[in-house]
This record gives sequence, structure tokens and C-alpha cells, in this order.
Amino acid sequence: MSRLEKDDNFGDWYLDIVERAGLSDKRYPIKGMNVWTPYGWKAMSNIDRFIRQELDATQHDEVCFPLMIPETEFKKEKDHIKGFDSEVYWVTHAGLNELDVRLVLRPTSETAMYPMFALWVRSHQDLPLKVYQIVNVFRYETKQTRAFMRVREIHFFESHTCHATEEDAQGQIDEDAEMLSRIAGKLCLPYFLSVRTEWDKFPGAHYTVGIDTVMPNGKTLQIGSMHHYRTNFSEPYEITYEDENSEHRHVHQTTYGMSERLLGAVIGAHSDDKGLIMPPDIAPFQVVIIPIFSKDNSAVVLEAARLLAADLSGQGIRAKLDDRDARPGSKYYDWEIRGVPLRLEIGGRDIEKNVVAFARRDTGEKGQIERGSVGEGVRLILGMISSSLMERARASQESKLQDVASLDGIPEGRVVRFGWCGCEECGHRFEDTQDMKILGTPYPAEKGYSGKCIVCGKEAAQPVLAARTM
Amino acid sequence: MSRLEKDDNFGDWYLDIVERAGLSDKRYPIKGMNVWTPYGWKAMSNIDRFIRQELDATQHDEVCFPLMIPETEFKKEKDHIKGFDSEVYWVTHAGLNELDVRLVLRPTSETAMYPMFALWVRSHQDLPLKVYQIVNVFRYETKQTRAFMRVREIHFFESHTCHATEEDAQGQIDEDAEMLSRIAGKLCLPYFLSVRTEWDKFPGAHYTVGIDTVMPNGKTLQIGSMHHYRTNFSEPYEITYEDENSEHRHVHQTTYGMSERLLGAVIGAHSDDKGLIMPPDIAPFQVVIIPIFSKDNSAVVLEAARLLAADLSGQGIRAKLDDRDARPGSKYYDWEIRGVPLRLEIGGRDIEKNVVAFARRDTGEKGQIERGSVGEGVRLILGMISSSLMERARASQESKLQDVASLDGIPEGRVVRFGWCGCEECGHRFEDTQDMKILGTPYPAEKGYSGKCIVCGKEAAQPVLAARTM
Repeated sequence: MSRLEKDDNFGDWYLDIVERAGLSDKRYPIKGMNVWTPYGWKAMSNIDRFIRQELDATQHDEVCFPLMIPETEFKKEKDHIKGFDSEVYWVTHAGLNELDVRLVLRPTSETAMYPMFALWVRSHQDLPLKVYQIVNVFRYETKQTRAFMRVREIHFFESHTCHATEEDAQGQIDEDAEMLSRIAGKLCLPYFLSVRTEWDKFPGAHYTVGIDTVMPNGKTLQIGSMHHYRTNFSEPYEITYEDENSEHRHVHQTTYGMSERLLGAVIGAHSDDKGLIMPPDIAPFQVVIIPIFSKDNSAVVLEAARLLAADLSGQGIRAKLDDRDARPGSKYYDWEIRGVPLRLEIGGRDIEKNVVAFARRDTGEKGQIERGSVGEGVRLILGMISSSLMERARASQESKLQDVASLDGIPEGRVVRFGWCGCEECGHRFEDTQDMKILGTPYPAEKGYSGKCIVCGKEAAQPVLAARTM
Repeated sequence: MSRLEKDDNFGDWYLDIVERAGLSDKRYPIKGMNVWTPYGWKAMSNIDRFIRQELDATQHDEVCFPLMIPETEFKKEKDHIKGFDSEVYWVTHAGLNELDVRLVLRPTSETAMYPMFALWVRSHQDLPLKVYQIVNVFRYETKQTRAFMRVREIHFFESHTCHATEEDAQGQIDEDAEMLSRIAGKLCLPYFLSVRTEWDKFPGAHYTVGIDTVMPNGKTLQIGSMHHYRTNFSEPYEITYEDENSEHRHVHQTTYGMSERLLGAVIGAHSDDKGLIMPPDIAPFQVVIIPIFSKDNSAVVLEAARLLAADLSGQGIRAKLDDRDARPGSKYYDWEIRGVPLRLEIGGRDIEKNVVAFARRDTGEKGQIERGSVGEGVRLILGMISSSLMERARASQESKLQDVASLDGIPEGRVVRFGWCGCEECGHRFEDTQDMKILGTPYPAEKGYSGKCIVCGKEAAQPVLAARTM
């Protein structure tokens, strides 16, 4: 199979990597619903683990709400249902009966959770209420599907919070942004935050902050979002609390969510023509150990390789011993495709010299580690790989960003930055003529910006980013 | 609220505990689909963790298959569809369109997985194939629902394996039984294994082993099952492998699954009139710390309580500090309902004497632990609580088992054991006249048994158990 060049045709290259690395199987008999294979699921579970750690550490409680939502609850917030009407799955029959009330498979869980929040929140002492769940959601995607990036069953987390005041809710969005920075650090993934336009915000939101990352082809991929709802949902769902003065007030709400697109973004950002490069923190196997046999020493070498694997595992490093009956070269090839960040080799001469040979997946750099301090050595190199992946991805993102001042000659394959007066007319004019999407204004807002609207030339209070999207 | 006596009316008592302990919220607007609240979900996640450990340690790979199954795939195995036809949810519409092929929400995942297994298994080198997933499944239950025991969205694990031979598949069932013994140990839950009758086995199975536990009212609760499929599914789904002689053969398959009924069983087995008693291994909080304030010492006591909590947490013990502004007695009451296995109290005099006071939830026993070795002390007591819960539950189960020799005077509220010739006619006669269910013959089979069929008096090769079921 000939390799597809990453910069040549990103879409095909991406799907080829997903398939050859064994991250997902798209042959399931429903389009856009793929099977999570063991390797892909391990990587996703490692991502989930970091998400759980962050949410737990910030006093969010994990819950699990039912998958199905009665049509009657689903339709209570009018913008929300308008936004989702064309993309939900409907359960209409159970057993041999037609249901009295049709059920929606959750496309997101506002309308499942908020009738319960109305029961759970009574007084200001119940606030803030902070919960999250890690579940799959369902959207009847009509565009072409693509593993992890655009699927119909989506693995994601959603956190939902209720607060006494708008300011408290705003504080939550800032906490979300801090969590994001730590989670993205584990994935070596740069990103930027944009306050979405009015016509692009989440159905029912007061405002939406989109989390975007740039793919090597210059298109952006939205990996998640944070929403401030004010009282837009608490009013129809009647979520109120009694304040210190015994007055009943509606809570202010926020949500925050990111999906399996995080894994898609990692694949896009950190792979090369040899295959995937897994960031060490989420790699199912951080280290692969290849025994190098020569004549008559296979028992000794295999034993040394096993001890090495046990030694590393004992130190909390995810190590895989590849003791298959195959040539080392073909093993290298397999694990390079799958993106194991560090390869260790051990042969007769290494045993004699009390060393282990290594090869970095990201740079190809080779060297030796003292066998006696192999755990520390591996940890050090994995840390270097993480830093180097992050640096490389940041440089790539920056190289794709470009300031533009006029509508003539907007470059291809770039995320562009320009002034916008903020009016819908100019916004739509830009999007329609350029076939690009306005991602929004920077979050937090840029201080001291001064510029002109790229469409009408009026004063622009903030710059915006715009791009083609995946 | 008056407490319901456990032995009085088990059903009401059970629901009362579930509600007061905050394990589940049944006010969700679809009957039989309850909300997993933080406390219940933490307990279930701890159970899932042990399940994952066991399956990982026996080389099962975790996967995640799509929720929906096309009707065409679902109907390939004829007994299977007959068994599930009346209890599945149907998705018929997506967005504004009617679907060409209706989709089933998985009631279990054989028919989702096996079309993919047919692609994954090629040669004998691909065998055994062992995968599992921890997901929710959906069954349109028409009987009265009951939290964790009979619900319409069911949290469960399912492992699916493919083997070259019937014997290898049999070996898997034995491995499953070993895992079960370790998992049930963590839950302090006794159980027995019965080979189900022909008319009660899983739709499509060669044979089914049911896993049953006895509730305090003498009814049994099935908490899971293991199935040997032989080639019953691999034939319609065409899952074949090439053996060493290049011949194509159908794989032999097994499955194994247990559900959130494990948590229901724990509640039933280990609670008393004060509330729940959580087995220490799955308790969300293993220890609750109550600071005992007297005049002017609250800052000192609170600081000591915080240090104690941090000390225990640092040693991997799940400790909760209850620093609410409330009387100790009311805190005791709350945590007794929720079943925290060990309560620690720390007050001014304890600090002076360098001790911590404790009270066991299971026996009420009180005493002191040296503050300097509090971690070891707590671990020791938690271990004693586990042993004691298991012993108590075993004694309760044994007291409910009774050998019977004739159809006259079958006792109420008992699991009965008797000889059965094995013919369907006698089996049905027993079940219909006694309004009980035959659970099946012992697994593994009892050696050297000799007895007569309780119905027809003919020679019985094996005894059977029968009971009323939850």
C-alpha cells in the first residue's frame, strides 16, 4: 500500500492512518457509527481519565442520566428544539407497541437534566450545582462522515452547572478554560477560544465559546465548547432557588463539553507519513520493547526483555513487549504506524554492556539508556517527546494564522484574522463571498485592539478569526 | 418518616433505602429509566473497576460497539429475535426522515458484534478473540420496575469470546466462574450457579449458567449469566477461521455478563433498619470523619479532622470529612443511612490522647485507634467489616436453602432443592403448580448425586434449585 502524503490530501491521509493504526473500524453496517477497537478505545479512555481528574478536582460530581428524552421535555426551550429538530433520532416503538410519547436519543442532555435540576435545587445552599457525565450522544449527521471528526454516535463529556448569579456562572466558564489548558497539555494540542457569532452559537445559549484547533491543511476543527446560558433554560424548566432574603430566583447555567474529536485532533496534529505519533500521556503503550535475537541467545534475550517490560510496568510506564515471531524491521514498521512514542531494543550486546537501545518515534533520534536507571531514562525521554510534540504543533498552528486587511487575496489554507464591526450583515457578507466561517472574537477579549471592519471599513472593537472548517 | 422493617416488606423497604441513601432518582419522566445520582454512580463505578481489572487481567480487550443495530442484522439468528422481539426499542425516524431500515437499541450486543467478528477472525492465530464492553442496554420491561433490579435502561458489562473448539469455549466459562468468585468477594456477595432449563436459557444459547443470589425475603435475584453458544451464532453470522490444515471451521462462542443488579443485590444483602451498609471495597466513602466540637476548640478540632482526612486519603483510603454546621447526632444518622462502613470521630480529648474514636457501621462496635497508625488501623477494621459482611450474607443465604422431598408442604420464602428427572413435562408441572421457577442444576454438576424426581419419582441424575424470583 503506498503511503499518502500528509500535506497532499489531508482527508484521505487521515482516514488511512485511522485504519492502518487500528483506531476504529468503519465497516459497521450503519454509516457514521464506527466500532471503537481496543487500541482506539484505550487512547480515548486515557483522554477520559484526564477529563475526569480535572472535573473531579473542581468539585463536579459524575452522574449518568437516561439516554432517552420524552418529546414533551425536549421541546420546552424553543431555540433549542429548532437547533436540533433536524438531527435527532426518534424512538417511536417499544416491543410490539407504538409509544404514546415519542422519545429522542439525547443529542446533548440539557433537556434530560433540567427537569431534574428543578427538583434538586431548592435554596442558595444547593448552589453551585456542578455535575458531568461521560456518555455517547446521537446526531443524525447528513454531511459526509469521518472517524472521530464527524460521526453519528459521538463519545463526549458534558458538564452542567447552576449558579446563583450571572457572575458566578461567568467564573465557571473561566474555570472551564483553565481545565482545558491542562487537558490540552496532555494531548500536546494547541487551540484557540473564540466567542461564536450570534448566528452560530449553541441553540438556547446566551453566548458560546468555541474551542478550535488547526489541522495541517489549514482548516479548523472544533473540539468542544463552553456555553453561558444565563437563565435561558432555567426559565422554561423552572429551576429556581430561594436566596438569603427568601426570594425565588432563576439559576444561571453553564455547560462545557468536548468530544472524541480530541482524538481526531491528536491524529491530525501529531502524525507523519510513517503513521501516528501518540502523545505519551494518552498513548495506550508508551514504550514498545523489541528483543533482538542473534544465534543461540534467544532465551537469554527474551528473558531480559521480559524483565525490562516488568520493570517498566512496575514503575507505572505502559510498556508492551513484542515477542512475536517476526523480524525486528517488520515490528518497527507496525509500531511506527500505531504511534508508540518510544521504542526500546534489547539484544545480546546490550545485555553485556548493561544498556538498552532506544529510538524516538517523533524525531527518529537514537541512543542508549543505562539499564539500571531505565525507568528514569524512559520518563525523561517521554517528557522530551511531549514538549517537542507541543512545540511542533504550536509552530504549525502559528504558521497557519495570518492577519489580513482586505477582502482581496484572502489566502488559501489559512486561518485569517481581521477587524469586523460586529454587524450581522457584514458577517454574512464575508462568510458567503469567501466560503469561510467566522470563528468569532477572541476569548477573553483582546485589550486595546484597534482596527477597521474588513467589509464596511467602520471601527472594529475586536478582531475575528475565520477559516474553512473540517 | 417511619422506618420500614427489612423482613416485613422487603420490596418497600428496598425502595425506601435506595431513595433515602440517594443512590438513584426515579423521578425522571420515563418510567423505569432512573437517574444515576453521584453517590449511586460512584458505587457502580467502583464495581465496574473490579470488573475491568478482572477482564483485563484475563486478556479481554475493552471495545465499544455502536448502540444501534439494523433490523436486518438483528434478525439473523432466529431464536434470538424470537426471545427479544417483544422487548426492544425501535428507532424509526432520524431528523425529519423515516429510516429505510429500522434500528434496534441494543438489548445485548451479539447481533452488533458478530458481523464484525466475521471480519476480524480469519485464522486460528486470531483465536481466542476476547472482548468486552461496559455500556447501557435497553429492554422494554413490562413488569413493575424497581431501581437497579428491573429497569429499562440497564448498566452492564458483556464479554464475548470466540474459540477454535467447544472445549476451549468451555474453558472460558470456567475462567468466567473464577472471575465471578473474585468480583463477588469484593461485594461480599454469596451466590450460586445453575444451568438453566432448556425453556429458560438465553435465546440462541447452547446452554446458560445463571448467577443467582438470595434476597432476605427468600426470593432469588439473577445478577448475571454465562452462556456457551457452540456455533449457534457463528453459523448465521459466518464467523469462521482457517485451521492448521487450511480447513474453514465455525468458531465456538461464549458470553458473560452482569448488570447493575450487582448493586441492587448489595443493597438487599447488606442493609439493616438504619439504612445501607456498603461493602468497604465498593463504598464511595470508606470512612466518614466527624469533628466533635466543644467550647472554644473548634478551630483546633477542625484542623485535626482535616489533617486526618488528608492523611487517610494520602494512603488511598476514601475518606470524607463532614464539616457541615450540624449536630454530630444528625451527621451520624445521615451517614448510617448512606452506609459508610466506618465512622471516625475526633474531638479535643482525642487530640490530647493522640487517638481517634471509631464506630463500625455493620456491628455498631466502638473503640479507639492510635492516631499515629490510623491508616493501618482503618485498613484492619475495613477488612474485618468485609469478612463479617460476607459471613453474615453466607449465613443468611444458607438459612434460606432447604432440601425438599415431596410436593406437599413446599415452604414459603425458601430456595428449595430437590431431584428432577429432567423432562420438560415434570419441570413445567412443578413450576405451574408451585408458582416457582426452576433455577436449574448445579454448575459444575454435583458428583455422586442420587435422588428421585419430585414430580414423577423416576431416577434424578442431578438436583435442581427452585425459588420465587425478584
